[in-house]
Amino acid sequence: MAAAASGVFTRVNQPTASFLRTAKLNCGGKKQFFVKANAGNSEAEGGGVVIRSEKEGIWKDKDGWKIDFSKDKPPTTLLDTINYPIHMKNLSLKELEQLAAELRAEIVYSVSKTGGHLSSSLGVVELTVALHHVFNCPEDKIIWDVGHQTYGHKILTGRRSKMHTLRKTSGLAGFPKRDESVFDAFGAGHSSTSISAGLGMAVARDILGKNNNVVSVIGDGAMTAGQAYEAMNNAGFLDTNLIVILNDNRQVSLPTATLDGPAKPVGALSSALTKLQASTKFRQLREAAKSITKQIGPQAHEVAAKVDEYARGMISGQGSTLFEELGLYYIGPVDGHNITDLINIFEKVKAMPAPGPVLIHIITEKGKGYPPAEAAADKMHGVVKFDPATGGQFKTKSPTLSYTQYFAEALIKEAEEDPKIVAIHAAMGGGTGLNYFQKRFPERCFDVGIAEQHGVTFAAGLATEGLKPFCAIYSSFLQRGYDQVVHDVDLQKLPVRFAMDRAGLVGADGPTHCGAFDVAYMACLPNMVVMAPADEAELMHMVATAATIDDRPSCFRFPRGNGVGVALPPNYKGTPLEIGKGRVLLEGTRVALLGYGSIIQECLGAAEMLKSYDMSTTVVDARFCKPLDTDLIRRLAKEHEVLITVEEGSVGGFGSHVAHFLTLNGLLDGPLKLRSMVLPDRYIDHGAPADQLEAAGLSARHICGTVLALVGKTMRALKL
Amino acid sequence: MAAAASGVFTRVNQPTASFLRTAKLNCGGKKQFFVKANAGNSEAEGGGVVIRSEKEGIWKDKDGWKIDFSKDKPPTTLLDTINYPIHMKNLSLKELEQLAAELRAEIVYSVSKTGGHLSSSLGVVELTVALHHVFNCPEDKIIWDVGHQTYGHKILTGRRSKMHTLRKTSGLAGFPKRDESVFDAFGAGHSSTSISAGLGMAVARDILGKNNNVVSVIGDGAMTAGQAYEAMNNAGFLDTNLIVILNDNRQVSLPTATLDGPAKPVGALSSALTKLQASTKFRQLREAAKSITKQIGPQAHEVAAKVDEYARGMISGQGSTLFEELGLYYIGPVDGHNITDLINIFEKVKAMPAPGPVLIHIITEKGKGYPPAEAAADKMHGVVKFDPATGGQFKTKSPTLSYTQYFAEALIKEAEEDPKIVAIHAAMGGGTGLNYFQKRFPERCFDVGIAEQHGVTFAAGLATEGLKPFCAIYSSFLQRGYDQVVHDVDLQKLPVRFAMDRAGLVGADGPTHCGAFDVAYMACLPNMVVMAPADEAELMHMVATAATIDDRPSCFRFPRGNGVGVALPPNYKGTPLEIGKGRVLLEGTRVALLGYGSIIQECLGAAEMLKSYDMSTTVVDARFCKPLDTDLIRRLAKEHEVLITVEEGSVGGFGSHVAHFLTLNGLLDGPLKLRSMVLPDRYIDHGAPADQLEAAGLSARHICGTVLALVGKTMRALKL
Repeated sequence: MAAAASGVFTRVNQPTASFLRTAKLNCGGKKQFFVKANAGNSEAEGGGVVIRSEKEGIWKDKDGWKIDFSKDKPPTTLLDTINYPIHMKNLSLKELEQLAAELRAEIVYSVSKTGGHLSSSLGVVELTVALHHVFNCPEDKIIWDVGHQTYGHKILTGRRSKMHTLRKTSGLAGFPKRDESVFDAFGAGHSSTSISAGLGMAVARDILGKNNNVVSVIGDGAMTAGQAYEAMNNAGFLDTNLIVILNDNRQVSLPTATLDGPAKPVGALSSALTKLQASTKFRQLREAAKSITKQIGPQAHEVAAKVDEYARGMISGQGSTLFEELGLYYIGPVDGHNITDLINIFEKVKAMPAPGPVLIHIITEKGKGYPPAEAAADKMHGVVKFDPATGGQFKTKSPTLSYTQYFAEALIKEAEEDPKIVAIHAAMGGGTGLNYFQKRFPERCFDVGIAEQHGVTFAAGLATEGLKPFCAIYSSFLQRGYDQVVHDVDLQKLPVRFAMDRAGLVGADGPTHCGAFDVAYMACLPNMVVMAPADEAELMHMVATAATIDDRPSCFRFPRGNGVGVALPPNYKGTPLEIGKGRVLLEGTRVALLGYGSIIQECLGAAEMLKSYDMSTTVVDARFCKPLDTDLIRRLAKEHEVLITVEEGSVGGFGSHVAHFLTLNGLLDGPLKLRSMVLPDRYIDHGAPADQLEAAGLSARHICGTVLALVGKTMRALKL
Repeated sequence: MAAAASGVFTRVNQPTASFLRTAKLNCGGKKQFFVKANAGNSEAEGGGVVIRSEKEGIWKDKDGWKIDFSKDKPPTTLLDTINYPIHMKNLSLKELEQLAAELRAEIVYSVSKTGGHLSSSLGVVELTVALHHVFNCPEDKIIWDVGHQTYGHKILTGRRSKMHTLRKTSGLAGFPKRDESVFDAFGAGHSSTSISAGLGMAVARDILGKNNNVVSVIGDGAMTAGQAYEAMNNAGFLDTNLIVILNDNRQVSLPTATLDGPAKPVGALSSALTKLQASTKFRQLREAAKSITKQIGPQAHEVAAKVDEYARGMISGQGSTLFEELGLYYIGPVDGHNITDLINIFEKVKAMPAPGPVLIHIITEKGKGYPPAEAAADKMHGVVKFDPATGGQFKTKSPTLSYTQYFAEALIKEAEEDPKIVAIHAAMGGGTGLNYFQKRFPERCFDVGIAEQHGVTFAAGLATEGLKPFCAIYSSFLQRGYDQVVHDVDLQKLPVRFAMDRAGLVGADGPTHCGAFDVAYMACLPNMVVMAPADEAELMHMVATAATIDDRPSCFRFPRGNGVGVALPPNYKGTPLEIGKGRVLLEGTRVALLGYGSIIQECLGAAEMLKSYDMSTTVVDARFCKPLDTDLIRRLAKEHEVLITVEEGSVGGFGSHVAHFLTLNGLLDGPLKLRSMVLPDRYIDHGAPADQLEAAGLSARHICGTVLALVGKTMRALKL
């Protein structure tokens, strides 16, 4: 069994590789080409605290480990002895299997109390255990792509006792974070960065003369992003030792569920991967190699190697060559829930003196081992607190829907009247609400995969032919298509509409998902119309507005979370707004609050507070950052003592555009007091989930306080 | 010969494709599966105005067409009859070959008078002629990737008479531009967008019920970018009819020359492509298919098809499967200088009713047919005016080197003292000056290919291990790695140093290359140190400064063009600056000019002019946009009547950060007059090469005029 995945590591597509390998071999590399036998031996030795009774809620039967989630959390006798990976080194295979079962239970019961990303972590329980058993972190580096699958990793690397603080203020991050642990080799949140980062670490290792291992773990969804391809192409060229684990769970690992169930993978690549999985000939050959080795002992390794090589040759004709052509040595497919296979293969690859970049293709199942997750349409990808027995989530009822849903409804209404409207998203059908649009107009909705760059230019191409594309991409993810927004859309004045969800603060998702920069990076473009709605009705009007803007690009940003409960337009159909015109919500005399986006609600709250001070306050909803409502702003500047701009974004955005206009027109040459309230850097950097606007200094109370300070009053009188 | 490249179009990797194809066939598609015979016939008919005398400087001998570049421009009798592609439709193959020769001569003599991108256009002369003969533009769409290879396309599409205005103010753009011609289906400048845009156009065509062809022409260099992979993956999934022409000239088609000659392709992909080219078995089989067809006539098509299929099967094992796996039907390799082959294949593909996405791999040579370009290390990629006889360029001598070279020299000096310094560029060794660094430190310089996303995260990975990466990427190209700058570098506070060349205006390269946005998009990030040097000595100091900043990321922007001639630090070794401290260049009383970057030179010029008005002027070099020198700015605000910020960038950048600080601290509550001078939107959008700063309103004269207007004086008195 030890030689199950044996084989001589030759690289057919790298004529120079053998030379390099020889050179490295002579520099003190280990010469063991085959998997160590002791992996099998330790299994035979048995040992460990195996629980065999169903009564305890966790037990092993002939099919493997079982957990009864209808009961209280089962005992985790083995996991309780593991604080760091070092404690896992001497465990037998049987014990490691038990550890995986306990870790699975731990994750389910822990996340049931905090909410978070559940099914991705459940899918990699065996992988996590195998990696930390074989590799020696933190000297060896494991880079988890996207990073929402790392709860098991966190539990095994000293953070089990803090899991109850997950995604809370000052608590554990929902993703790997370098600040948090030396075991988090690279921070993540956005996808497809792990091979690039891993290659950088591997090259640095070689330059610095170290010899640690670098392992990048990337999902099949993340493989659709161009950055992964760029990185593999470069890794193949540099021929650096690097282990890439392709964690193939046969769906883009993001909330892309359609309304009818899980989304199918959208790239052509996935069909190639599927073929690999289905390759029975390959599996049969592998089995043949196993039995030969068993029968005639390890001396058979040359025979086994030949069989393996032949099997690989067959595979090569069937789909693995994409990776081989990019210069990665392909191993797979491997059952990602079989700890024995994983450990054997990892040990073999680790023992290679100079394998160059290796890709190990493993097959896993999202939500594995937790029946409610396995059964759910979205595999319980991201959850709030839930009942472990049933998987039922304790969702708080809200009288309003999310901004996302209002956006989707409004877009559907526009599309019903205008057949030229089409929608594009990047593997985020659920997240962007376009799964509703997709259901209604399946031929007019395009999921391009995790491929924001392509998605934006694809939309530009659609626009050249007279269609009306709405490109729905989160504020922070659109950063990945920024050059395309500039170069393919804006400079060509093509009418692509960008719906930027998750703008501003995003709570528990943390700083990587914070939409802090979109106003700055969009409003600096010469042709872009830049909008933000104050509430969900305004959002619907802006969808209608964008639909009518057909001579240049436009965008609108809206926040995570639910609408504020304003009256909605009849039949959810918005009315186009006049471009570049704001609206006065409250007429006052001394102070003007000029808000941009949903933060208007805080401005209204502040105005209410200011009443107690007899401060007559004007509140204006700017609606547009570009073009600015210059008439209105001019009037505000002339008729008030104090003008405050407020936005949920960085410096360089709305406030900067207002200040630029005011100074350029001499409106600040007099005594008008201008203040621009933005998200402070420290908050963008460390974003904490609780009391978001309060913590960021953008609450109604803060706005009120800023005004009072400017007119020489203090908050104390207000007892706030 | 007509069936030379025949074959039944089956898609081995697309199990659903045959079903879809049948469906489309029934919807009125043409049923002709084989190349038309008339292509061969028209050749037999001969005709056309073939010049046969060497005296005229252009003639045909047994090896094909020849041009004598030592003489005056030869007659172009056939080209003179072609104003638009419609005029090429009835030409015979012989005539098309002559047209190609004349077009080649036209390009050489035309570019010799204007400068521009020479060798890329020469390499696609035959391709351009073949495409415009077979396809019907503008109904059919040709999308030229990057677009610097389109001079021939421009000449054949009604713009021949304007070629003398190339890259001049109000003249022809150096790239395709939708505003310029309906034949320019999509604008370009940055690479790797063509498949995305083409797919958008193809999908739109299907939605709108049209039946035109869409052809994306992309180079092998551009294929290294992730966006191309994202687009192919999506094209394969959608199975839309789309023709991708991979123009493989075996080098990244950008000025990546090392100091010792042309750069080798840097991706592993290129070795796969090379194998395709070298596949003699494939070529032999093709030849066999040809001769069979010749011997027994078109009835042999089934045999030929079988041979072709077999040949394709062999190829499939050798390297084409990357494209096949992504769902594109692969055809190739094809001699891209053989018009007959190109036309036959294009006509065959065009005649297919529903081929889905097809990739035609053609092999071309940059600079083909012009011996000085063929011989040059950089293939004469980008040239100034030159002598057609010798290829000798009329380079203006400058007493100073380019900023790019000063950057490279300074970085080499730092790297000599600090072995941890490494450098990364994205296929721009020549453009970024890192070819000098590469020559000096070959093991510490990384060309990642056209892969800015990967390059940035790769640098982040290097930084995690304690190396000191300098990532040299043009300001406008860094837009393509923006998410990685935010997510992988800034939020992790990793000390990656970004050297942003071509910041601000870039002259003839036009708006796609204008570095207008980097200050806005970098300074909004919480951890980034953001700098710009006033001159080449300052640039060297900033390289030294960045080398010392090891606890967070930093960046510095510098312009295209030559240094101003200041004294350089001894031995080109800069001295680290104090972070966040500006410097006063000129002490005055009434007016403060606060410049950021090389525009400081204009501020100094303006101060000189203002002397004539007895306007005592302070000139400050801000050096840092982030962190701002708040002490200095506070003093400027308090001690002057007028404060003017000046920068070569958009709103949202330096001026916005200064204004934010001033308002936040009440420094604008009094009568201080603040003005922020930036690049106006209309200029960013339409950027014209001549008199850049003057046209953009950022010259010394404009700065002076702004000051005078603010203090109630006019420029007239100054007679400016």
